[in-house]
Amino acid sequence: MSNTATALTSTETYSLLSLSLACIGVLSQTFVGGDGEPVVASIAFSGLAFASCYALIRWLGNAFIRRGFKGKDLCKLKQTEIPETMGAVCAMVYLFTIIAFIPWPFYKDIVIATSGGGNRDVMQDIGELETGRLLHKFPHNKLASYLSAILSLQSIVLLGIGDDLFDIRWRHKVLIPAVAAIPMLIVYFVDFGVTKMVVPIPLRPYLGELFDLGWLYYVYMAMLSIFSSNSINILAGINGIEVAQSLVIAVLIVFNDVLYLSPFAPYPHPATDSHLFSLYLLLPFIGVSLALLKHNWYPAKVFVGDTYCYFAGMVFAVDGILGHFSKTLMLLLIPQAFNFVYSAPQLFHLVPCPRHRLPRFNVRTGLMECSRVEFKKPLRRPIAESLKMLHRLRLLDVQVDGEGQVISSSNFTIINLWLVWFGPMREDRLALGLLAFQTAVGMVGLLIRHRMALLVFSVDNW
Amino acid sequence: MSNTATALTSTETYSLLSLSLACIGVLSQTFVGGDGEPVVASIAFSGLAFASCYALIRWLGNAFIRRGFKGKDLCKLKQTEIPETMGAVCAMVYLFTIIAFIPWPFYKDIVIATSGGGNRDVMQDIGELETGRLLHKFPHNKLASYLSAILSLQSIVLLGIGDDLFDIRWRHKVLIPAVAAIPMLIVYFVDFGVTKMVVPIPLRPYLGELFDLGWLYYVYMAMLSIFSSNSINILAGINGIEVAQSLVIAVLIVFNDVLYLSPFAPYPHPATDSHLFSLYLLLPFIGVSLALLKHNWYPAKVFVGDTYCYFAGMVFAVDGILGHFSKTLMLLLIPQAFNFVYSAPQLFHLVPCPRHRLPRFNVRTGLMECSRVEFKKPLRRPIAESLKMLHRLRLLDVQVDGEGQVISSSNFTIINLWLVWFGPMREDRLALGLLAFQTAVGMVGLLIRHRMALLVFSVDNW
Repeated sequence: MSNTATALTSTETYSLLSLSLACIGVLSQTFVGGDGEPVVASIAFSGLAFASCYALIRWLGNAFIRRGFKGKDLCKLKQTEIPETMGAVCAMVYLFTIIAFIPWPFYKDIVIATSGGGNRDVMQDIGELETGRLLHKFPHNKLASYLSAILSLQSIVLLGIGDDLFDIRWRHKVLIPAVAAIPMLIVYFVDFGVTKMVVPIPLRPYLGELFDLGWLYYVYMAMLSIFSSNSINILAGINGIEVAQSLVIAVLIVFNDVLYLSPFAPYPHPATDSHLFSLYLLLPFIGVSLALLKHNWYPAKVFVGDTYCYFAGMVFAVDGILGHFSKTLMLLLIPQAFNFVYSAPQLFHLVPCPRHRLPRFNVRTGLMECSRVEFKKPLRRPIAESLKMLHRLRLLDVQVDGEGQVISSSNFTIINLWLVWFGPMREDRLALGLLAFQTAVGMVGLLIRHRMALLVFSVDNW
Repeated sequence: MSNTATALTSTETYSLLSLSLACIGVLSQTFVGGDGEPVVASIAFSGLAFASCYALIRWLGNAFIRRGFKGKDLCKLKQTEIPETMGAVCAMVYLFTIIAFIPWPFYKDIVIATSGGGNRDVMQDIGELETGRLLHKFPHNKLASYLSAILSLQSIVLLGIGDDLFDIRWRHKVLIPAVAAIPMLIVYFVDFGVTKMVVPIPLRPYLGELFDLGWLYYVYMAMLSIFSSNSINILAGINGIEVAQSLVIAVLIVFNDVLYLSPFAPYPHPATDSHLFSLYLLLPFIGVSLALLKHNWYPAKVFVGDTYCYFAGMVFAVDGILGHFSKTLMLLLIPQAFNFVYSAPQLFHLVPCPRHRLPRFNVRTGLMECSRVEFKKPLRRPIAESLKMLHRLRLLDVQVDGEGQVISSSNFTIINLWLVWFGPMREDRLALGLLAFQTAVGMVGLLIRHRMALLVFSVDNW
């Protein structure tokens, strides 16, 4: 029944072992320099996360299948059952990595706060010990925001696993990321509470320099979490696309973060800390996602499950909110936003929506073709006309019968649109095309963000 | 197949609704007094947690059964399948309750730090806003320790669900609580780092007033988590016993906490904050546990799963460590410790250990009888003699054949021992007896702790 290979080949074992040993070596050296070198440590942790995630995905495959986490790949000739919900493994490894990493970014502060050398010998007073009070100069607010990020990510994983287990209804699961964002929002409320936005210059005569969004700021943050998580969840369905698009976004954010660090920006720069924070969250994410992609890329040996999409989206949302670059994040999610807007007519049932909208696998050619929705009942006139217009704009493939009635159209997803544009192609080429698009749009987005910011704000915080 | 009733009766619906409304009413009043009245708010939150947990356990029963979370009650005449792992529901409700509660204990500080009235109008400088810096006097360290507690609890729930899903091997699952304790230990390391213990007077000539346990302190905390979680997990097997023993322990800790608050102690007392912290974690735990107990008490309609036992044990461990009363906690876990030591010969295979050690259900009488282990091979002499000695001490029921060979004994659990002492009884009376024992031992423990502490320490922190 189950033909999932669970053992690592000896090449894999040796590669993963050497990688892990190298990372542990690097990690043990990070304290020698004296300041904990958190970025180096984060890279080493990410390597370890990659290795453990890679091995665990392989080892746990059969256990997942046995417990009913399994599915068939509809876009293959031979439809074997492969493990589902492997994103949960990935997310667990990620969570324990960022938890284990906590001491590094704070190492410098620990040493300074305790009179050097890491020996905590400042507090000797028995009274203070008995009451459990210890007040030293320590960046507790940085720690609290890091912890709240982990809490929100753990919450989304718990809820995502719940969804993968019990198949929560569509209209409920849309809200899952908002629930998971609560820890972050509450800590934000308690600990920072900055709900003011810098107003773009053209609007300053009306709103002043700063505009207090008040509770709307919390709504904005919750919406961003919902959007980020769900938009990745609906741009899905072919091998590797969920993980690979997340990787592209993560790498672009890392690229943007690095622009704020030396030697690219003067040090210390006011935004350095925020972008370091962002790096610490993203590097291990890239590690575990690469391990998952290796198994999920065409032809997929495992599926990722909703857990992964929620989790990835939440990593971005948390990162953007607590790293204070949520507007930049939205620029990187433009393809997802486009896919959402483009899908809206089907999602909101203006046009019939079949249960599955993934592209169709042509058994004869082995290629993916765009899937179509047939309109049994004639469409209402304005809708039919809009579809014909979209067809003329090359944004849809519409079939019309002799009387000018729209009888079918391609499904409203960016994946199908890609196939409309470029014709049938193999699943991996389809994924690669979409990823190239994602990368290109993201690069342009970042360029615009850094070149144009000065036109609408008085200072670019670059 | 499934006969689990999932609807609430109308009485239940009205009671839960009125309770919830009352709690929401109380909650909305907590801000009127000006200081957020966190204890009152915590009680209201616990009421809400009870109501939601009660309803969710009922509503989700069939979904759990469908997904394979189900089991048969071996100690009943009619063995129907009932939902398993309901402790996970309980734990989820708990986690979201203590997360939603975060603003209350910090409300006063928010108001003070922001020049009163809750308006955050201290920071107006656009420069500080753009860099995301806000430094006000806020008890970040309290917040960090609260957040780390939640992180550890979320970790144990994630791992517990993993265990209930995949049936992790015994020797691995023992370590689950240690893994889940990592977030708390790391934040402790980063943020507090007090690893010194107050030395009892008789030992002071040798060790001094304070003894630095160093890294051993972290081992101690990890061990406490392991012990607390697993000891509840092995004192299990009859309806309601896991939840009810946890409730007894929780109520006793709450009793101990209240002793440190006004009007029982001078205010402000150095330990007030720690014990308030403990209350905030325990009251909602009592709420969700009561809801679970209602469904798990004899005759059980749901099972709790390993998740609950781990979760409950971790609540106690986190509470004891961050509330600085881990030694008091151990006094309350004496029955569990006794059960562990008593079980050790079977757990470590000095004596054969059958797969299940729960008491035997006598179908004819409807009563529980102690279960026995038969020794097919003769026991080694010292072991046989020890068993006979335990028999003479009334700590075991041993059967000897004509030649003086031990041929069987009661199983080595406190539950079976209770049946050896008091004879066969119905399942609920057995549970009640053990709970009375737990309560009595706990009360004596607390008495000793507060009366005797002065003999070995120079100050009781009472």
